[in-house]
Amino acid sequence: MTLKELGEFGLIERIKKNIKTDASVVKGSGDDCAVMKFDRDRYLLSSCDMIVQGVDFSSKDKPYFVGRKALAVSLSDIAACGGIPRYAMVSVGLPKNTPLDKIDQIIKGITDLAGEFKVNIVGGDISRSQELVIDVSIIGIVEKKFLVLRKGAKKGDIIFVTGSLGGSIAAKHLRFIPRVAEARNLVKKFKIHSMIDISDGLVQDLGHILKESQVGAVIYEDMIPLDRAARGIEDALYCGEDFELLFTLPRKEAIRLYRDKAFFCKPIGEVFAQDYGLKFIDGQGRVKDLKPKGFRHF
Amino acid sequence: MTLKELGEFGLIERIKKNIKTDASVVKGSGDDCAVMKFDRDRYLLSSCDMIVQGVDFSSKDKPYFVGRKALAVSLSDIAACGGIPRYAMVSVGLPKNTPLDKIDQIIKGITDLAGEFKVNIVGGDISRSQELVIDVSIIGIVEKKFLVLRKGAKKGDIIFVTGSLGGSIAAKHLRFIPRVAEARNLVKKFKIHSMIDISDGLVQDLGHILKESQVGAVIYEDMIPLDRAARGIEDALYCGEDFELLFTLPRKEAIRLYRDKAFFCKPIGEVFAQDYGLKFIDGQGRVKDLKPKGFRHF
Repeated sequence: MTLKELGEFGLIERIKKNIKTDASVVKGSGDDCAVMKFDRDRYLLSSCDMIVQGVDFSSKDKPYFVGRKALAVSLSDIAACGGIPRYAMVSVGLPKNTPLDKIDQIIKGITDLAGEFKVNIVGGDISRSQELVIDVSIIGIVEKKFLVLRKGAKKGDIIFVTGSLGGSIAAKHLRFIPRVAEARNLVKKFKIHSMIDISDGLVQDLGHILKESQVGAVIYEDMIPLDRAARGIEDALYCGEDFELLFTLPRKEAIRLYRDKAFFCKPIGEVFAQDYGLKFIDGQGRVKDLKPKGFRHF
Repeated sequence: MTLKELGEFGLIERIKKNIKTDASVVKGSGDDCAVMKFDRDRYLLSSCDMIVQGVDFSSKDKPYFVGRKALAVSLSDIAACGGIPRYAMVSVGLPKNTPLDKIDQIIKGITDLAGEFKVNIVGGDISRSQELVIDVSIIGIVEKKFLVLRKGAKKGDIIFVTGSLGGSIAAKHLRFIPRVAEARNLVKKFKIHSMIDISDGLVQDLGHILKESQVGAVIYEDMIPLDRAARGIEDALYCGEDFELLFTLPRKEAIRLYRDKAFFCKPIGEVFAQDYGLKFIDGQGRVKDLKPKGFRHF
């Protein structure tokens, strides 16, 4: 078997099989963040994200926004668990002919965003590489009562998203605002059952929630908030890197959320039993089965 | 100015200038680990290290030991601060034609070492890249009373190293044992003033201790424990990646350590006032000024 045949998620499953953790790890790999014991009321969260030139950004993208994105994707992971990002470490692989001005811009993109979100950059590493690579690891904190994972979605839950979906490749993937404040407000005011950030596409990331929660779902074309930059519904379903929050909550809570004008969240569907699978109802009322599909590295 | 003219350490200084941290950060970037408040008696430690094919290892090195090294260098950072490594995250950039067997071996190298040191692998990221890149970030814990930093060396301290130095490029850099147990024993039994792991070469890393502690030092050729693989004293002085501990402690403590047969540590010199600089006394008793020199990425 080759890496291509196994695929990114197959590889991750293969690796996870061999990893054991001790009792201090509440949730290891397989969610937006790892969750570790911290103190009586709180957990530690951690996550890492590597972005590579030619895959996650292009050589033509503004270095400032490349740096910004490197940190933003990590902040988004902490948001998806309902937490507060606190400490970041940044490893950078730089081609040896990289202009200093470009490095300065990358760093400024990182430090500006860190400042906005009150995240401490506490360390890093610099290495020589053939292509620009930035890996950010983040440590956050979440009150036990506010922790939300991918698992936890229940039959009858309503599915919501923040913001709008699709077309992030046009620009948003470099300039999105990590939904940390939104997530904190949501977990404080509502009983959120499950949450994930949309990094690989709505269908694929909803698939993660369904798999971890052992449930099925339906989503409605007419309810999905399309981004202005989206070329059509396919963009919203399958394009990655919207970095919006996708979450589920009980119907009663959903009604309260829907009426709360402080939240820019839209309901897009409902959680069903697992044997229902994942279905899509288009603008003409036709029912389609959706297969997980979205961005994959291999 | 170009990256080459600025150099790796110049670049790090340039970046550090723009980084602010809040009161929860006891020590930010600029030591082997960052140190953060944790609870009444303990600090949190964190560090990250990126290794890149063609720089930190070659395509001919056994993948098992490449994976092992990726984690080992991070464990060594925690050791250098006197701490216990607890959680690791591993980001891997893989060329798309990487054989699965090679990936399995890399992962096994990481997980075997994690098992030996009771470190939990709690997450990771996989990306496509042109060359193999592995970035490991580590979280550790240290009792406040056992924390050791680069700063803290005092005039009159004796300088020690664990193990032997030089020639790591022959094999040791891929197979070294992170000195976690040794460091723990040292900080528990002796009053260690300053410590660092030798990753960039004895002279360069001793230079970091001297600079942070605002002191000078002398080291003696005859006292430096040469590794069998070292081609000469130059290898011990300037070759990086020995990953032995370099530390200083008061003379009284040093005598106690020297007499303790449980420790394989050797005295190599003494700490002087800062205006003394860094001097080397060779086998013939000749005095030489040493300039920081060792491995640099740029």
